[in-house]
Amino acid sequence: MSQLPLGLSGERFRVTYQLAGPAEDVESRAQEICVEQTVEFPPHLIHSDAIKTYIIGRIEEIRAINPELHEVVISYAVETSGFELTQLLNVLFGNTSLQPGVRITDLELPSRLLQAFKGPRFGQQGLRAILGVERRPLLCTAIKPMGLSPKELAELTYTLALGGIDIIKDDHGLADQPFCPFRERVPRCAEAVAKANQASGLRCVYAPNVSASGEQALLNARFAREVGAGALLIAPGLVSFGMMQQIAEDDTIALPILGHPALLGSFTASTTEGMNHAVVFGSLMRLGGADASIFPNYGGRFSFSRQVCESIAAACNQPLGHIKPIFPTPAGGMTLARVPEMRAVYGDEVILLIGGGLHSASPDLLANCRRFREMAMA
Amino acid sequence: MSQLPLGLSGERFRVTYQLAGPAEDVESRAQEICVEQTVEFPPHLIHSDAIKTYIIGRIEEIRAINPELHEVVISYAVETSGFELTQLLNVLFGNTSLQPGVRITDLELPSRLLQAFKGPRFGQQGLRAILGVERRPLLCTAIKPMGLSPKELAELTYTLALGGIDIIKDDHGLADQPFCPFRERVPRCAEAVAKANQASGLRCVYAPNVSASGEQALLNARFAREVGAGALLIAPGLVSFGMMQQIAEDDTIALPILGHPALLGSFTASTTEGMNHAVVFGSLMRLGGADASIFPNYGGRFSFSRQVCESIAAACNQPLGHIKPIFPTPAGGMTLARVPEMRAVYGDEVILLIGGGLHSASPDLLANCRRFREMAMA
Repeated sequence: MSQLPLGLSGERFRVTYQLAGPAEDVESRAQEICVEQTVEFPPHLIHSDAIKTYIIGRIEEIRAINPELHEVVISYAVETSGFELTQLLNVLFGNTSLQPGVRITDLELPSRLLQAFKGPRFGQQGLRAILGVERRPLLCTAIKPMGLSPKELAELTYTLALGGIDIIKDDHGLADQPFCPFRERVPRCAEAVAKANQASGLRCVYAPNVSASGEQALLNARFAREVGAGALLIAPGLVSFGMMQQIAEDDTIALPILGHPALLGSFTASTTEGMNHAVVFGSLMRLGGADASIFPNYGGRFSFSRQVCESIAAACNQPLGHIKPIFPTPAGGMTLARVPEMRAVYGDEVILLIGGGLHSASPDLLANCRRFREMAMA
Repeated sequence: MSQLPLGLSGERFRVTYQLAGPAEDVESRAQEICVEQTVEFPPHLIHSDAIKTYIIGRIEEIRAINPELHEVVISYAVETSGFELTQLLNVLFGNTSLQPGVRITDLELPSRLLQAFKGPRFGQQGLRAILGVERRPLLCTAIKPMGLSPKELAELTYTLALGGIDIIKDDHGLADQPFCPFRERVPRCAEAVAKANQASGLRCVYAPNVSASGEQALLNARFAREVGAGALLIAPGLVSFGMMQQIAEDDTIALPILGHPALLGSFTASTTEGMNHAVVFGSLMRLGGADASIFPNYGGRFSFSRQVCESIAAACNQPLGHIKPIFPTPAGGMTLARVPEMRAVYGDEVILLIGGGLHSASPDLLANCRRFREMAMA
């Protein structure tokens, strides 16, 4: 290791920013990002050569996509991240998120930085081992609608578990409402799954939504574990990626996590600002410890394109140091009729999440579940 | 109180969504939002009339702005929020954030819902009382650049405090980096401010950046309080609005909070998606307990328009039940030369935040601070 000032290792992570706008502005805008995301101070007033040389971001590459669109690769010293996810997000995009026409399209994180993250505790293999499912796609559904009581949701959960669903999650709208308190719903539904597993011999798990304000999310996750939940649903757009990471890395919880996209759409909605879908629903979900990343599949109620969905699935699977691959979990208006196509597109390393569509297939919910399972085994 | 099913009060909060797209689609898209943000389930499969009547969102009003842009007001039962900020955000925009062409432009929250939030502990009056400043704009600056040691930052802090700055905040890029550990920086800078106050007879406060992953933000805030910090800097886009709220409402911390906009730009960058600036930097900051909302002023390094900035200032001040008004804190490339204009635009219920500009005004930082103070008193 060379002797660098400020105790720096010399290792840097790289961020690709897409800049929309005239070619002649690209270099100066890139230079502004280098400053904004680090020292946020007029460089000519900085006396330290070490800060100017190593702390300020560095333009590594500028590529034209077309005359009005460029990609700029900027590198930062790994130490600027403080080796934690929240500050990493801050260096990536904190103030620059407030600038028009700048979008993050790619991240390259060296091993020294990745070592700061445990990533998903289970990943694809670990989740398969828990569920005892070797090769086929995993089956997931959600209990809903909001407004049902804990007792009604537990009855629904029992039927779904008996029907052979692998993971039964709370709808992400189920929180701690007076008509369905968290501390009543979670033990009831966990118990329903245990009872159904006894009857079926299967290994279904229940994933309650633990998203809540501040450390309440962490307390909810601990409670869920104590009363027999087998997984957790967490929306990092609501509770922060850092909080999801803490829950994922907590050895007293140690449950698989389904990452939910609620509120994350604001990062991906624009094509010129925010971040690419693969970064948010792939890389950040994995750094934040999710074992599965739920996202709106193409051709459902949402508008993600097939190409976008495939990019997310690729980011769930691509090499990322020691960070395990996770399950892409396309959802949002899926139906039984789409299962063969989804398997063709995503392969079998996927979680198929069908919510309302499982109820609309026929009036017999149990039969619909069994049909879902057969289609995933075929 | 009327007897409604599901223990509902009948009170509803109202959200204004702006829909970009053809007029003929507006009503069906609005209806889809009503379902998506609540039951997320095919309405014809819901057996409960109570759920259909009260839980599903309700279209209250549709207004055309122009043939391709409409505003839709949708109301939701207050109970769907679980009376907590994280779930409120989820109902407002969770999945709908993933839809193109939908933007939140306004919130109307009834008293029954607002009662769930303490809001800013201090607000404008409370912060003025702490600082002993009756009428003039408050003066704020940031210690930087990233890369300085705790000792160097403490020396800088001393000079700034001696110069008569009211609030000296960490630059938001200062986290817990190896070259500047949080637990070394915060006590040193707090001590520097105390020493300067003794010399000057003033009541300057130091506001360290406590943003960090998961409950570490809360632990940082408690540590900061213990070692003499007089305020806190928190970026809710990084740590979540719910975590900022918890820190604001914690009686063992009880410090004023400066809300920082890092990463929140993705909510406001597009004109057709996300949320209006006034909602994010006004309403949400106040619900989340910030006593001041930092945002990029027009005509600086960022691109917010004057009109946008004025809408944020209005949202910081407008009536919001018992929730106190807070200080708009325009920043981002401000200079001493802009002070008279900023006072003319924002009035004196404002925090003037000048960072690098305080260093570039002349080589004598102490003199620059004093000049800043004179300009705010004039």
